[in-house]
Amino acid sequence: MVMRLDEVQRQFVDHARVARLATVDGHGEPHVMPVCYGFDGARFYIPIDEKPKQSDRPLKRVRNILETGRAALVIDRYEEDWDRLAWLLVRGAARMIGPGDPLHAGAVELLRGRYPQYRVMRLEVADMIVVTVERVTGWGALDGP
Amino acid sequence: MVMRLDEVQRQFVDHARVARLATVDGHGEPHVMPVCYGFDGARFYIPIDEKPKQSDRPLKRVRNILETGRAALVIDRYEEDWDRLAWLLVRGAARMIGPGDPLHAGAVELLRGRYPQYRVMRLEVADMIVVTVERVTGWGALDGP
Repeated sequence: MVMRLDEVQRQFVDHARVARLATVDGHGEPHVMPVCYGFDGARFYIPIDEKPKQSDRPLKRVRNILETGRAALVIDRYEEDWDRLAWLLVRGAARMIGPGDPLHAGAVELLRGRYPQYRVMRLEVADMIVVTVERVTGWGALDGP
Repeated sequence: MVMRLDEVQRQFVDHARVARLATVDGHGEPHVMPVCYGFDGARFYIPIDEKPKQSDRPLKRVRNILETGRAALVIDRYEEDWDRLAWLLVRGAARMIGPGDPLHAGAVELLRGRYPQYRVMRLEVADMIVVTVERVTGWGALDGP
């Protein structure tokens, strides 16, 4: 089941620049990374860097998704005034897509719209994580400035 | 096995204000939340709010830790200049401690040292998550300003 975000949640997601992606491997070991994302109203798209940092092995987050197919994303605001804290937690199914996937071109466009940095990077050939939103939980001053 | 952070990693941890904590439940479903923390060189301490937000049930992160005993924490810096990105990923064993635990008073002191906000909160009676560092992975400009 695909879950929709409300207007306040959607603006919070659109405004934020970074999310943290939690995945888990087949042995139940959790993992978490900061990620850039695009969001189309139902799915988050997270591009994979062209070159893994240390080896030819796929990144741990990718291997986890191939193993278990689940993800959680948190988008939050931290301020020293704790009345202004807010977070949005998204949970759902995760899978990998490549350039041949029907969703890929739209994801590239979304990402380049959000991040000028991607306009000079070869996103067209990048694999992407797709997280389909199943559950959304929010807390705090999501509608704050 | 407890793993130590090097000096650059330690400064990055001490300087940052928020981490994101990933846990997993007994069904392999990942979860992730922004958290404040104290760090004593070997363990991260994450206090639990006095009052769960919505019900008397323990928070999901607490239930996950009681079920699986594992956690991952990421501390990162996001900047629009992507040459300045950095993250530190910590993985380890997680457990709950209460006010009676020998580590509790030191954790309260650490947290109040880092966060003036906690000085007026009843941390003395708060349960805490303890994450014992087993693996550390870092990437990017950890030594940047």
